[in-house]
Amino acid sequence: MSQPQAGRGTFITFEGIDGSGKSTQARLLAEHLRAQGHDVILTREPGGSPGAEEIRALVLQGDPDRWSAETEILLFTAARRDHLERTINPALAVGKIVVCDRFADSTRMYQGLSRGDLRATVDQLHSLMIGREPDLTVLIDMDPDTGHARAKSRQTAEERFEDFGANLQAQMRAGFLSLAQEFPERFRIIDGARAIDSVATDVAQTVSTHLSSVG
Amino acid sequence: MSQPQAGRGTFITFEGIDGSGKSTQARLLAEHLRAQGHDVILTREPGGSPGAEEIRALVLQGDPDRWSAETEILLFTAARRDHLERTINPALAVGKIVVCDRFADSTRMYQGLSRGDLRATVDQLHSLMIGREPDLTVLIDMDPDTGHARAKSRQTAEERFEDFGANLQAQMRAGFLSLAQEFPERFRIIDGARAIDSVATDVAQTVSTHLSSVG
Repeated sequence: MSQPQAGRGTFITFEGIDGSGKSTQARLLAEHLRAQGHDVILTREPGGSPGAEEIRALVLQGDPDRWSAETEILLFTAARRDHLERTINPALAVGKIVVCDRFADSTRMYQGLSRGDLRATVDQLHSLMIGREPDLTVLIDMDPDTGHARAKSRQTAEERFEDFGANLQAQMRAGFLSLAQEFPERFRIIDGARAIDSVATDVAQTVSTHLSSVG
Repeated sequence: MSQPQAGRGTFITFEGIDGSGKSTQARLLAEHLRAQGHDVILTREPGGSPGAEEIRALVLQGDPDRWSAETEILLFTAARRDHLERTINPALAVGKIVVCDRFADSTRMYQGLSRGDLRATVDQLHSLMIGREPDLTVLIDMDPDTGHARAKSRQTAEERFEDFGANLQAQMRAGFLSLAQEFPERFRIIDGARAIDSVATDVAQTVSTHLSSVG
């Protein structure tokens, strides 16, 4: 099948457990890069395009047993395909930097690990319908107890994934660190258990190194 | 991955171009089988379970360019997985006859043919996430001009697929006849360009022959 075209911009994703601060860091990086004169799009998954946001609402709201793991993976992949076609690829094609809060690695972890052993299914579906990996993935690593306390302090209507508990968070952390070993060329691990500004400085330096190496 | 369990009931699908009368024939077959004492579920795609009906609304309403063909295939497959898990498989597992208006063959035709050459993608996705084929597929075959006139006489809010035109209907008819050759063991072709009762009699006889051959 025709895969979405890779562009000449730079595609940077943030990954990490709930409460790791990755959304804040994604926003701070976008602001930092804009201040440096780069043309930046800040986006997130699930969602990031009008259609994908509608699918996001369908997946994240309601009863935890509303969808099976397999149906959920299909819905996330549909949202990702729309996000890629309508938001990410057009921006990359005109040379922008795309900063995205979560991408396929989150599906590899949350659906691939936490709801049964579906990693192979997630990977086959990704290879068939998405095909694209980020140029750089910033993993904000954090002790699960700290991350869990932070995540629990938030209240949202999208509660289906908020009730994971510390054991699952520990499993997810280990999973993300293992993914970083699996894809060493694009993953960079940043210690997130520090002051926001210190983490942001490390992220900015890591991204700057990447941009100068490819630019 | 774990595929949905095949049950001991009988899974019968109806396929055909818009306006071929397959929805009417599916309903008449369900009534006929119930009158004979069978336990029957009449269902349809896209939809057929609460979650799948929500996905149906997302796919069928709105602008024709709202979703790319690839995203649409993913959404239909998500709806089909939910329909299979929540409606079809539980009914088959307790020995019921499931009569379904459209199933995967419609995706093979409408998304696989009419929006680019995506048949291979549809088939790979089906094999990865669905896996199940019907026991018997009744193709209500009809001249496209007749079918098109019938389809156009209906008005619904789900208009994204109603504006196909006679050329595409002719292509779809040829595609369904070709599918019937590809899966001869489960496909039965019934001439739909006759009085409803005559068609229904042929359908009932075809199904009766199938049930007695496997029962």
